[in-house]
Amino acid sequence: MTPELSYIIDTLFIIFSFVLIIFMVPGFAMLEAGIVRTKNVTSVLMINTMIYAFASFSFLIIGYHIAFGSFGNENMSQWAFVLFQMAFVGKVINIISGGVSERVRIIPLTLFAVIMAAIIYPIVVNVTWGLNILQETIFHLSMYDLAGSTVIHSTGGWTLLAAIIIVGARNNRYSKSGRVRVIPASNIPLVTLGGFLLWIGWFGFNGGSVGSIASKENADLVALTILNTNTAGLSGAIIAGALMLIRYKKLDITMVLNGALGGLVSITAGPDLYNIYQPIVIGAIGGALVVFAVPIFDKFRLDDPVGALSVHLINGIWGTLAVGIFASNSEKEISFLGQLQGVLTIGLFTFISSYIVLFTINKLSPLRIAHDEELEGLDVNECGVEAYPEFKRAF
Amino acid sequence: MTPELSYIIDTLFIIFSFVLIIFMVPGFAMLEAGIVRTKNVTSVLMINTMIYAFASFSFLIIGYHIAFGSFGNENMSQWAFVLFQMAFVGKVINIISGGVSERVRIIPLTLFAVIMAAIIYPIVVNVTWGLNILQETIFHLSMYDLAGSTVIHSTGGWTLLAAIIIVGARNNRYSKSGRVRVIPASNIPLVTLGGFLLWIGWFGFNGGSVGSIASKENADLVALTILNTNTAGLSGAIIAGALMLIRYKKLDITMVLNGALGGLVSITAGPDLYNIYQPIVIGAIGGALVVFAVPIFDKFRLDDPVGALSVHLINGIWGTLAVGIFASNSEKEISFLGQLQGVLTIGLFTFISSYIVLFTINKLSPLRIAHDEELEGLDVNECGVEAYPEFKRAF
Amino acid sequence: MTPELSYIIDTLFIIFSFVLIIFMVPGFAMLEAGIVRTKNVTSVLMINTMIYAFASFSFLIIGYHIAFGSFGNENMSQWAFVLFQMAFVGKVINIISGGVSERVRIIPLTLFAVIMAAIIYPIVVNVTWGLNILQETIFHLSMYDLAGSTVIHSTGGWTLLAAIIIVGARNNRYSKSGRVRVIPASNIPLVTLGGFLLWIGWFGFNGGSVGSIASKENADLVALTILNTNTAGLSGAIIAGALMLIRYKKLDITMVLNGALGGLVSITAGPDLYNIYQPIVIGAIGGALVVFAVPIFDKFRLDDPVGALSVHLINGIWGTLAVGIFASNSEKEISFLGQLQGVLTIGLFTFISSYIVLFTINKLSPLRIAHDEELEGLDVNECGVEAYPEFKRAF
Repeated sequence: MTPELSYIIDTLFIIFSFVLIIFMVPGFAMLEAGIVRTKNVTSVLMINTMIYAFASFSFLIIGYHIAFGSFGNENMSQWAFVLFQMAFVGKVINIISGGVSERVRIIPLTLFAVIMAAIIYPIVVNVTWGLNILQETIFHLSMYDLAGSTVIHSTGGWTLLAAIIIVGARNNRYSKSGRVRVIPASNIPLVTLGGFLLWIGWFGFNGGSVGSIASKENADLVALTILNTNTAGLSGAIIAGALMLIRYKKLDITMVLNGALGGLVSITAGPDLYNIYQPIVIGAIGGALVVFAVPIFDKFRLDDPVGALSVHLINGIWGTLAVGIFASNSEKEISFLGQLQGVLTIGLFTFISSYIVLFTINKLSPLRIAHDEELEGLDVNECGVEAYPEFKRAF
Repeated sequence: MTPELSYIIDTLFIIFSFVLIIFMVPGFAMLEAGIVRTKNVTSVLMINTMIYAFASFSFLIIGYHIAFGSFGNENMSQWAFVLFQMAFVGKVINIISGGVSERVRIIPLTLFAVIMAAIIYPIVVNVTWGLNILQETIFHLSMYDLAGSTVIHSTGGWTLLAAIIIVGARNNRYSKSGRVRVIPASNIPLVTLGGFLLWIGWFGFNGGSVGSIASKENADLVALTILNTNTAGLSGAIIAGALMLIRYKKLDITMVLNGALGGLVSITAGPDLYNIYQPIVIGAIGGALVVFAVPIFDKFRLDDPVGALSVHLINGIWGTLAVGIFASNSEKEISFLGQLQGVLTIGLFTFISSYIVLFTINKLSPLRIAHDEELEGLDVNECGVEAYPEFKRAF
Repeated sequence: MTPELSYIIDTLFIIFSFVLIIFMVPGFAMLEAGIVRTKNVTSVLMINTMIYAFASFSFLIIGYHIAFGSFGNENMSQWAFVLFQMAFVGKVINIISGGVSERVRIIPLTLFAVIMAAIIYPIVVNVTWGLNILQETIFHLSMYDLAGSTVIHSTGGWTLLAAIIIVGARNNRYSKSGRVRVIPASNIPLVTLGGFLLWIGWFGFNGGSVGSIASKENADLVALTILNTNTAGLSGAIIAGALMLIRYKKLDITMVLNGALGGLVSITAGPDLYNIYQPIVIGAIGGALVVFAVPIFDKFRLDDPVGALSVHLINGIWGTLAVGIFASNSEKEISFLGQLQGVLTIGLFTFISSYIVLFTINKLSPLRIAHDEELEGLDVNECGVEAYPEFKRAF
């Protein structure tokens, strides 16, 4: 295996992985468009499109350099590496946008996406996968996080938590007596399509994060990573379905798909470290956490239409800690405490910095849409375009 | 070409093929969700999700070992091989679930999926692509079936036939005087999207089944296989369209897409054996068989909402026999009789074993939903979630 | 790097690129199905399916040979090369079909697709990427067009212009006083899904057009091409969004997606020639051109429901000229005049030849559907199948 050949094969491999991740763009868009009410569908799709455009752009121009310094890569085409890293950034912000949907204005959220992609997320990457400015400090992180249970998912989750605290719940979501009003998803096929596109994208996300396929060992690691990723998703879906059946005697598909996504998030920190059976347990706990966490967030009136806090924040934390439990390894310097330190450091930094930025943006240009515009729907007021103008509404 | 290099390239190639096959998961889901009535859409999506979860899981834990023995592969990463084989199993069961949709309960069907994926299908794989317990017996199969006209499609089809016999037709589908009531598809864009996702998945299904791309000969075979696969699909679509136009003066898109799928099934046994023109004929016959078979199954009151018997059973048989007609080759031990023997042996085994299992499950937990629940729709009763709650129904 | 190894890697690379392009088939189908009114959705989907079937088939049997002579390729599997080239042809015709949707009959349009795919488009390919019968003449084209700003997009655009002139505007689209009646898109999620599938397909379209990934230089070129392609799309979306916001205070998603597509078309002639910042400018101009061109075409009563003239014709021209502005290079014989000569030669040939063919077809079998059938919708009259039969219409 000459260096040139390895360079070529890994460039192809990373481009392939990049493309799979980009399928998550329509994936998130369809999932969210299916979950929100028809009056807010166009707005959600617009936000998803804006995020892809602005976040990728900001990362390419500014964020990449904060995370990794100047362009350049010796092991594959530098542009393939840029593409792959750039594909990640939109996902972090999609997590946020989904959770505050149906009440947030497009422009201030896009402004936040720019700052998140250009500065906040790149700092997180810097100290984990990148240049690592903390390297020589006492805060040096030893957390193992292959594909971002913390770097992507709980980073997105903490930011979402800050955003939900600032913008509040959707109108009429919680009654004064504390009851939760169920707001049904408007288009289940779109939710399902989106869920599976995300699932497929995960193969590129996690598989590509191995970084190289150009040796026998790495080829095995990539394939194991994808197998384990899938297994955790299967396991999360099965447990979520079983729990829903026991509890409500019904198979709620949005919860089953969220269970799968929870399993996928939970495996993301270490799919290359486990044997093929450990992901069954890790994913099952991930799926169960989604089912139990959703009502708890509602109890605290943290209104999250797509369940992103449960899927990404809770499972991002769980997945990172799971590495410390299942793959603790003194040779590789992986320990539970090291994982916990990483979770807390990144969590603290992300929550505080994104809270400050969101709070400031909110003062300059309110994130929350006006009450009557929320009632009428964001589509007419923000986009001037209804999602399904020809279909008569049942209510 | 060192063994290590071939190992790496084939691992990448098989992972790529695996990912394409997984696009068939949303493919089947969207196709079926588009064909059934709105009151049963969520249920169909739930079944598709459950099948992917449980069937993949059962195959990984049990079925794989029945088919292939212990893990291990010398030519590529063993986990890539597992992923690829695991991706197949869901497709077999999707064929079944589609054909019994709109009247079957999710839980007993999921239970059947587990047994099918863990035992029945793996036995079929064992005697064809796997360990081959029949090797030393007089039943030794010499059937050539590259990517599963028989192993996947007619296996799914025979099982579906058993299931339809047991569960019966949808309420009010056939009048007492023998007339067939047309039940229109509820969402044509989803049907089309699903059809094309399946088509794309087929490139991975058939191309990957060549097993290696890591020599000049194999690279040619893979490309030829994908070209021929596509050609048979084109040809099936064109013939189905032409026949519909001649017969009804209308271009029914569901029939055209089924014609394409029929063509794709029919080429699947031997796309690597034909020149680039033979698939035109084979796929055309496949497409025509769909058009002619659909009304025949209705005459026998075998109610199959998605046309899966015509697409998968009839064309699975035709495709396997076509190898014996177009690619008969004494050197490779391919003969019409050998193909026929394979079709009959697998068909007999699958139909009988799946009939027994389905019959037993049906006694323990009825497959068929209660009459009034069927009328109201499966979504409300099985899932507690309507697919499109905000859209007012026209009827 | 032995020739055999390069052959294998490039076969895999081109098959991967081919598959991405085929995602544009559902991409165009969903985009167009989402934009037209519900009464014409099935018809649009049927046309897209027929185009894929007939155009690919005609190109495989006849068109390929006009463009490239006999089969055969030394650098990769000849069948991979055929697949890749065949994937292009449907895109050219999709551009046309989208722009004349909601009033054109399926059969004469399919007939045109056959002639376009078998003869007209292959002649364009012959003189640009293929055998080049003009090579020894004074019309010898020196235009650089990596992936078809001219060969695909403006070729499709000129043909569409001819078709729109012949078939006229949709009923009631323009009032006698010259006002334009807005006809809203019926399904925004489908438009968005289609837009992103096209975007993803573009990575294969442009990346694969580099032709080889099997050297360090080519690996860099492929990755740079994909990065630049994406950047131009981002830039086009951002500018289109900004201009809509300034002009109408609303974020119209169909315009933003068309801005992205305009950016993608504009980069397609030379994504391998630019540095990573030039595509920002080129794509931004592309996105702006879409916003400005759409109302101009309406002023001339050239009714184009999907904005294809602005996206593909205008930006196809712009993208080809942009190579002459930004990448002019005496060593590679790239000059603005050479680019302009290519644009004009191909434009003149395509417009005249397709006008003659469409005019002749229109005499034999009218392209335009009858007035009352247009009012009732093409779906019932052409396909006998409504797209969403169960949803009650709001109007």
